[in-house]
Amino acid sequence: MTTVVRRRMGVEERREQLIAVALEQFSHRSPDEVSVDDIATAAGISRPLVYHYFPGKDSLYEAAVRRAADELANRFVEPREGSLGTRLLRVMGRYFDFVDEHGPGFAALLRGGRTVGSENADAMIDDVREAAYRQIMHHLEVDDPGPRISLVVRSWIGLAETTALTWLDGRRIPRAELELQLVHSFLALASVSAAQDEETARVVRRAVAEERPDSPFSELVAQLTATV
Amino acid sequence: MTTVVRRRMGVEERREQLIAVALEQFSHRSPDEVSVDDIATAAGISRPLVYHYFPGKDSLYEAAVRRAADELANRFVEPREGSLGTRLLRVMGRYFDFVDEHGPGFAALLRGGRTVGSENADAMIDDVREAAYRQIMHHLEVDDPGPRISLVVRSWIGLAETTALTWLDGRRIPRAELELQLVHSFLALASVSAAQDEETARVVRRAVAEERPDSPFSELVAQLTATV
Repeated sequence: MTTVVRRRMGVEERREQLIAVALEQFSHRSPDEVSVDDIATAAGISRPLVYHYFPGKDSLYEAAVRRAADELANRFVEPREGSLGTRLLRVMGRYFDFVDEHGPGFAALLRGGRTVGSENADAMIDDVREAAYRQIMHHLEVDDPGPRISLVVRSWIGLAETTALTWLDGRRIPRAELELQLVHSFLALASVSAAQDEETARVVRRAVAEERPDSPFSELVAQLTATV
Repeated sequence: MTTVVRRRMGVEERREQLIAVALEQFSHRSPDEVSVDDIATAAGISRPLVYHYFPGKDSLYEAAVRRAADELANRFVEPREGSLGTRLLRVMGRYFDFVDEHGPGFAALLRGGRTVGSENADAMIDDVREAAYRQIMHHLEVDDPGPRISLVVRSWIGLAETTALTWLDGRRIPRAELELQLVHSFLALASVSAAQDEETARVVRRAVAEERPDSPFSELVAQLTATV
């Protein structure tokens, strides 16, 4: 019994190692530029041994990308502490940490199917978006969201993706600036929609009311007043 | 000579007909759900005859999707008349006309490669985004855009895509409301970025200054003041 358990652990450990090595490779190059040989070499094992733990290139890449997708989804989990703006800012910090660590892999995940080498990549990124969506609704304290607040949240998640991809392409704007800008953009998009929708208006009023003078949303209101 | 010219015209006309039939099919179903048989039947010709005009399914689908992509890019061409808000609202009207006419095909184009059945689909949608980007910069009168105004425009194009895809999924919000909301969102996103960037601030000030009391941006400013 003991031996069997130990052998099983060995297989799992080796699989974990290969997933970690693949993710490390995907942090430097897009998955479609990484070969199984590259991974075998980096793991210090032979190519056939890689296939012993994963039946094919696709299954290893899919396991690695699924791991990354799960990790990305987890970055949206945030305690209900502090104002909404402060919470979103912490989430954006962890989101950009992820983008920073997994650059080419993140871009490939968003590009979907072909680049990742997995037909399930589209479903995986949709799962991440869905997890992010649920987390944010939880913080907005909206239980049964109507179409307009749903659109605000889904639009904002898309905005975070576009912003992160643009940042990766040359890193011409400091990421801290973009993290704060995304938090501000959430309130801006919600305020635009609030004009048409009482549910969204309630979220905006609550968010603005709970802010302290030095927190993200208060800054934005001051800035907008100055610009317009 | 005359005969040859007439025969060539015939080939081009038949190809045009097949492209039109494919696009008509893609307006009801995603390209990956449409077979060459479906297209042959709708065109009233045999399946082998389709292959006489297009060497394979991929080349026909790619020609159809490229036609749609070109048409979508053209919707962003807008004369320099009226305020920026009015122009963007006209562009959004034509954009949603396209989305309305080409629903499943539009969604597939944004989904990229696999769904369209063409490896070049990612490049095609990138071309559309690039054309939209150049048109908008032209209207903003920005010749050599810095990274922040670039990000605003690219983010907004992404926002229009997310909004259109969400609209297609159930059409739960009237499209006229979304068209106006997108125009408002442009100013909102630009205003957020303007706090960090003088180039964007100039664009925002000019856009707000040229508005009449009843035009899109003026409404937004009034609404935001009321909400916040």
